[in-house]
Amino acid sequence: MGGLDDDIIVEEESEKRSRAASPCGHPEDLYGTQSSHRLLAYSDALISIIATVMILPVAHTKVTNEEELTQSVQLLLTTKIAVYLVTFLIVTVAWAAHIRLFQVIVRIDDCLALLNLACMMLITFLPYTFSLMATFPANVLGILLFCGCVMVIGVIQSVIVLYAFSRPFLLNHQIQISENPTLYRSHILKVIMRVPLICLMAGVCSFILFQLSYVLLAVVIFLPYISQSIAWCRSKAFGQTEESPDSMVFYSLLPSEPLSKERVEAFSDGVYAIVATLLILDICEDNVPDPAVVQEQFGGSLIEALKVYGPEYLAYFGSFATVGLLWFVHHSLFLHITKATRLMGLLNTLSLAFVGGLPLAYQLTHEFPRNSRNELEAIQISCVIIFFAGIFQLTIWVAALHSERETLHPRVRYSGCEHVFMLAKLSLYPCVTLGTFFLTCVLSRFSASIFHLMEITVPVAFLVLRLLVRFALALLRLLFRPNPPDPGRVVEEDATVPFNPLATE
Amino acid sequence: MGGLDDDIIVEEESEKRSRAASPCGHPEDLYGTQSSHRLLAYSDALISIIATVMILPVAHTKVTNEEELTQSVQLLLTTKIAVYLVTFLIVTVAWAAHIRLFQVIVRIDDCLALLNLACMMLITFLPYTFSLMATFPANVLGILLFCGCVMVIGVIQSVIVLYAFSRPFLLNHQIQISENPTLYRSHILKVIMRVPLICLMAGVCSFILFQLSYVLLAVVIFLPYISQSIAWCRSKAFGQTEESPDSMVFYSLLPSEPLSKERVEAFSDGVYAIVATLLILDICEDNVPDPAVVQEQFGGSLIEALKVYGPEYLAYFGSFATVGLLWFVHHSLFLHITKATRLMGLLNTLSLAFVGGLPLAYQLTHEFPRNSRNELEAIQISCVIIFFAGIFQLTIWVAALHSERETLHPRVRYSGCEHVFMLAKLSLYPCVTLGTFFLTCVLSRFSASIFHLMEITVPVAFLVLRLLVRFALALLRLLFRPNPPDPGRVVEEDATVPFNPLATE
Repeated sequence: MGGLDDDIIVEEESEKRSRAASPCGHPEDLYGTQSSHRLLAYSDALISIIATVMILPVAHTKVTNEEELTQSVQLLLTTKIAVYLVTFLIVTVAWAAHIRLFQVIVRIDDCLALLNLACMMLITFLPYTFSLMATFPANVLGILLFCGCVMVIGVIQSVIVLYAFSRPFLLNHQIQISENPTLYRSHILKVIMRVPLICLMAGVCSFILFQLSYVLLAVVIFLPYISQSIAWCRSKAFGQTEESPDSMVFYSLLPSEPLSKERVEAFSDGVYAIVATLLILDICEDNVPDPAVVQEQFGGSLIEALKVYGPEYLAYFGSFATVGLLWFVHHSLFLHITKATRLMGLLNTLSLAFVGGLPLAYQLTHEFPRNSRNELEAIQISCVIIFFAGIFQLTIWVAALHSERETLHPRVRYSGCEHVFMLAKLSLYPCVTLGTFFLTCVLSRFSASIFHLMEITVPVAFLVLRLLVRFALALLRLLFRPNPPDPGRVVEEDATVPFNPLATE
Repeated sequence: MGGLDDDIIVEEESEKRSRAASPCGHPEDLYGTQSSHRLLAYSDALISIIATVMILPVAHTKVTNEEELTQSVQLLLTTKIAVYLVTFLIVTVAWAAHIRLFQVIVRIDDCLALLNLACMMLITFLPYTFSLMATFPANVLGILLFCGCVMVIGVIQSVIVLYAFSRPFLLNHQIQISENPTLYRSHILKVIMRVPLICLMAGVCSFILFQLSYVLLAVVIFLPYISQSIAWCRSKAFGQTEESPDSMVFYSLLPSEPLSKERVEAFSDGVYAIVATLLILDICEDNVPDPAVVQEQFGGSLIEALKVYGPEYLAYFGSFATVGLLWFVHHSLFLHITKATRLMGLLNTLSLAFVGGLPLAYQLTHEFPRNSRNELEAIQISCVIIFFAGIFQLTIWVAALHSERETLHPRVRYSGCEHVFMLAKLSLYPCVTLGTFFLTCVLSRFSASIFHLMEITVPVAFLVLRLLVRFALALLRLLFRPNPPDPGRVVEEDATVPFNPLATE
């Protein structure tokens, strides 16, 4: 029998391996279906880039070199930043809806892939409608275009749902084995059509009172966030309430893991990657001097000409180091997390929105001449952006600790070297930027070059940190456990003691 | 015993699931190591975006509206296109080296993650050094900067290798169990340091004869491609030769699968995603009219003002549809492929290089006024770009068919409905663009709008194609097998018969 057992396991193994090597190795292949994995990865990449690139119009706003930022430039910047933030939020709302839809539909075929691409095309067009709204707030055209796009997206998604329910082998196993799939279908359609219906109302309202349409659109954008926050606060205040079948059990089907951790990671990777590369794009477009200028102004010496750009290179390497390390912290954080709740998803979105603002920080810190008043302001703005990016990462961790049994790996639950080290990693950026911010307030003069040098040296701090934490824990162990524990002594068994001899060994 | 079998399998199952949910669920966690999966995905995203964004300086070259493209603009464009192509190739060479390195190192820790980020920072800086070289070809500074970057990357990669070999649990299982890991280490170091050494020579040469340095750099960029092509031709001409231990068995460790299929897919997804989003970025930056202009020139009518941009919207949707469908074809292709050989990797890179040129096609087709001579040329350039992107995808398929036992899923090997349909999908874009190209030559006048409308309608062609192929196969079956096969009849058992009743059923 032993041989047979092995055979079964080996067969299971090899089947799994072949399935991993080619997603087609499935009995349902005969119907021409495919695993949806790569389609979702591509959608994540598209949506994350679309969410982030709208920072470019902000960063490319030409700021003149006057002593104070003029009123009009400030207004322009504020408008563009608002467009960026609203775009980021609406795109992430669309992305969350996309995740939920493809938690119901787990396999795809060619037709669904094409429908999904059509959906993506319209999502990528949303930022443009926002730009129109921001530039012409009193004109109804922007509102109508936006509402039109959202309604068409809703129709396409409904077609996707109807198509998928007509071929049940594409669906989630839970729905496949359910007795009444029609109930699921009508419920999902109802949830999907909610937003397009609000947009239809907003479109109609725009002819009567366009201010009312904006209120309706704000409801569309912020409703998921507000309702999530309220639900979270309520559950914390009154204890765990019964999940309403409306939002959770029926639609997302996985109440304990509403957002797929893999897709959150893929989306975050996309944002960090595009931010890091937008920086070098600016360098390549702006910082290659004109041969004629080099000949005239620098007597043909390229090195002299490039020296002018010195601060920009420093700014580039500093900003890249910051983005890379924020990614690194995010990566470490999600290694310890086993599930992403909705609240954590929301906090992650906010953190990413600030990460997306880093190109603006880069642009501001190298644009102003040394020792000007604006340089100080630019450094302060950069500190604020990095601070919020870091502090929201920290709150993801706090939120995960709140429900640690569901969301955290056992190794990091309130004890052990890893827990302390994770906390140290997460608080490094908020602490450093807070310190720098207060320093700029006190000193009233601060060089951008020093700021960027600081940014570059932070990675070293990570390694030093690791050593320090280990050293401190070893010291603590030495202090509290000088001798092998004797049975008569009362050993403190507090779960919050920040070390665990087994884990630090 | 049956119950016990189930238990074993279930345990195996759940262990796998927990490992999938959190990459930490591994005995080596005590050493603080992590699965390298997400680090590699992030690196792929970064490298693919860096490879592609260099098309932006090309696409943003302002072309004046004269009857013929002037000589100087043509020269500028050619230079920039050369920079784009060379950047794309050198970045993919760096990427291939990165793949091979992380086929040896399969797990990472914090230190390796930080070293890898430092490596990425320098790779993202390479395009800038190329821009400098292209603008100042006779100046040694660009060459020196490039060589310096490559040498530092080499040093970092050597440190990564030394570090990983000092902690053997980070390494590939094959090396871990080998008797002599030091042999592997010195061999890998030798391979890694080859390129930095050539660059060192190029740097030294640049002081004596800078033309020679360019020759050396060209060797660095094209050597992998040339040697691969020669090896492939030789193996086809003289039969399968013994793999030299130098390049294959020792270093890449997986001779039959030199490029990880997953990473090729991730890299390709990155390129397609960034190309699709660069288009909307241009729309958002350029096509929001100024309120003052709308007031003056169009009497405050936003619709009138936006009508001017009509062709650009059409160009956007057309280009997005093309990118999306090329991705779709690529996706279908890689569903059927189980392994990516080096040649297939090379062909994929070339296909992606042309896909990256699509923003240029978009820019050209909407920039010229109707019925000008340049409009025709712009359409022809677009056709050429799309044609080559498609034809290289087709050659990936041909290359896969050449070694179909290793690289293809059994379902698509020279028979079956899927095989025919795949071929039809792959040849659609080359055929359509070739037809359009000849049409433009004959007609001598062709509207860009019609071209973009064609682009948008191609997705429909995909669905029609599917129906047509099915219909044709059903017809063939009806013609050749009108009766159930009788045993006396000689049944043609040719493997190339393009249908397979089991698969089409």
